[in-house]
Amino acid sequence: MKPVRHARGEATRQAILEAAETVFAEVGFATARLEDVAAAVGIRRPSIIYYFANKQELYDAVEEDIFACMHQQALKGIAANDKPIDRLLGLLDGWLDFLVARPSAARIIQRLVADVTPRRGNPTQFSNILLRDVEMVVNEGIAAGDFRPIPPMHVVNAVGSSSLFYVCNGKQLGSNRSYDAADPKELESFRELLHLLTRAAVAPATAR
Amino acid sequence: MKPVRHARGEATRQAILEAAETVFAEVGFATARLEDVAAAVGIRRPSIIYYFANKQELYDAVEEDIFACMHQQALKGIAANDKPIDRLLGLLDGWLDFLVARPSAARIIQRLVADVTPRRGNPTQFSNILLRDVEMVVNEGIAAGDFRPIPPMHVVNAVGSSSLFYVCNGKQLGSNRSYDAADPKELESFRELLHLLTRAAVAPATAR
Repeated sequence: MKPVRHARGEATRQAILEAAETVFAEVGFATARLEDVAAAVGIRRPSIIYYFANKQELYDAVEEDIFACMHQQALKGIAANDKPIDRLLGLLDGWLDFLVARPSAARIIQRLVADVTPRRGNPTQFSNILLRDVEMVVNEGIAAGDFRPIPPMHVVNAVGSSSLFYVCNGKQLGSNRSYDAADPKELESFRELLHLLTRAAVAPATAR
Repeated sequence: MKPVRHARGEATRQAILEAAETVFAEVGFATARLEDVAAAVGIRRPSIIYYFANKQELYDAVEEDIFACMHQQALKGIAANDKPIDRLLGLLDGWLDFLVARPSAARIIQRLVADVTPRRGNPTQFSNILLRDVEMVVNEGIAAGDFRPIPPMHVVNAVGSSSLFYVCNGKQLGSNRSYDAADPKELESFRELLHLLTRAAVAPATAR
């Protein structure tokens, strides 16, 4: 009987996490209310407290899950390739595909860049694994002589950021400019540009 | 006597706007309280209501001012140049320099991309002038044959976005990766990359 109860508890915990991600993405940490998350799951507030002691703990679990999953997808893209440039493109493709499939995560990360509130004192508590992936791959490319000595955080700010904007901006640029970020043709067009810019960003001066 | 009173009123209105921009940048629209804006100016809440009827009206005035000033700076960068690529770089330099000088504006725009709340129904009410600048300059370049037929909003998402991240992320990437976005050396290094990526984004296939 215990496995059944455990499975049910895990399903509820997962349902709470998913509902919380939507609420945090829509209204941000400060405005989000546990009551709204509970209502979305179809349970009552005390049932959430059974799994997550308070709003900060629930938010932390959401953010941790986002960055852990994004990191896993980046790792796959890195591991599938040998050459530094292909490993970097694999990493960025992992980010892009993750964010397109999970736009609520894109909104939460977008908020996190603007907003120190939920991570006051340690803004990279959960995102650090992602930043380290970029440092690893960029530094490998520099060491191999394939990349110019570009600061890895320049790559994050100048190239990594664009996938967040691409996903978040689909309905935010006005009705005459709206697009579906998950539309295959739209996505391929954006990915092509992302690859082109990434190659340009890291190419040694002699290769330009 | 009237001009004196008017000047004092205008100074108070301006002080309220500046304090409001800081508050909205720090905590977002939903959490911001008129009391906090009043306290920062050193006046009482009813004095704000004399100038701005409610929080939405105050927020609108802040956002309108941000995009109007950013647009003016972009226009200067465009008008100072003749060739399409230099006009586009001038536009993007205008955005970058504006955001570096006014990081609270960068945070508010960053929130706006994540958050439909303050502009529900019309997300580009005040930003539309910026998007039209990009459309004008990119379409000029395409018509002249200097640019490939790139969607102007791809330029916004893939290149324009990076200045927001550069400005907002100075203290958000962890203490071991922090930087001062206004530091001249740091800024020139980022601007060089921004120019390089912009050229790569619009270059016709034959020029690559």
